Amino acid sequence: MSIITISREFGSGGREVGKRLADALGYAYYDREIVSAIARKTSLDEGYVASALEGGLFRSVPVHFGRTFSYSPTLMTNAAALYVEQHRILRELAEKGNCVIVGRAADAVLKEYAPFNLFVYADMPSKLARCRERAGEDEKLTERELMRRIKKVDAERAKYYEMFSDTRWGQKEGYHLCVNTTGHEIKSMIPALAGYIQGWMDIQKK
Amino acid sequence: MSIITISREFGSGGREVGKRLADALGYAYYDREIVSAIARKTSLDEGYVASALEGGLFRSVPVHFGRTFSYSPTLMTNAAALYVEQHRILRELAEKGNCVIVGRAADAVLKEYAPFNLFVYADMPSKLARCRERAGEDEKLTERELMRRIKKVDAERAKYYEMFSDTRWGQKEGYHLCVNTTGHEIKSMIPALAGYIQGWMDIQKK
Repeated sequence: MSIITISREFGSGGREVGKRLADALGYAYYDREIVSAIARKTSLDEGYVASALEGGLFRSVPVHFGRTFSYSPTLMTNAAALYVEQHRILRELAEKGNCVIVGRAADAVLKEYAPFNLFVYADMPSKLARCRERAGEDEKLTERELMRRIKKVDAERAKYYEMFSDTRWGQKEGYHLCVNTTGHEIKSMIPALAGYIQGWMDIQKK
Repeated sequence: MSIITISREFGSGGREVGKRLADALGYAYYDREIVSAIARKTSLDEGYVASALEGGLFRSVPVHFGRTFSYSPTLMTNAAALYVEQHRILRELAEKGNCVIVGRAADAVLKEYAPFNLFVYADMPSKLARCRERAGEDEKLTERELMRRIKKVDAERAKYYEMFSDTRWGQKEGYHLCVNTTGHEIKSMIPALAGYIQGWMDIQKK
């Protein structure tokens, strides 16, 4: 089977790239579905699972505990158990057939399946603009606050990723293709991206 | 007019990408032509011009002179004059119409023309393999020597680039697309790449 993993900067439109690519190629698309599956399996709240997996637990670690998970034995066990569960589910999905998986360090976790790894990024002004669009009227963050949030989310993604990988998150060497969405329209990028990835898949099968 | 610049790691196949892209899009292709033009204008030897522009002059700077150009006033003047000439020629070519330009920090020098900037890279084993193929029978470098040469050429490219740019050479943020040629066949990449770039150009013109 063919697997495409998408890593992306917050606000770069990576999720849209993933969805549209999956549609274009007729692949399954997995993103939040993974969180829901884990929540069902563990009988934990979806919001809790999501924040735990997205590094939410690190956030509350007091500075004097350093970079360990030792804040609380319960939290630690939960987080570790969730990682294990997430990895198990990722592998289960990979076995099911062609798919696009967004985030979750899937490129590192599914390395043995030789996925095509895409990184999606953009410059700060376009990420800010995209976040504004998405947030709508009800979320009134200042430019500065929004920028801080973008950087924070990406820092957490990097931290999560680097637990499972020996390359750095966002370092081009770890990806087959790195796409800058600045000044481009995601919808119109898809046919070419799908073609590029399809070509790569064909060569791998040779 | 539409300009595509290609920056590439030594051995990644970036030049082939450039040539084939130019063919596919019907664009002019400039690479060594630029050196020849400068040599004609300055009545200097082509080999000399090439090595001066590719950082050959830095190479001979004795260590105790540090990182300056002060080895010899004549050399310095020549190198500076050649840079100026190269920049002038790059701009002249850009004015002529649609083109693909390989190397020469063209993305930085031609910034005001808003070119599409592509970076081509690969992992070390595939760069070694490509260099071996290209070198043929007559060049018998050991694996170690070849690897050292690849790293040296790239270090010189980075140094040259960073004289004219405030971003680092090879840092994905400076490019619209970064393409890893490892495990891919350049010929079969071209239709998708051409489509991607064409799509980007169309949006810029809107």
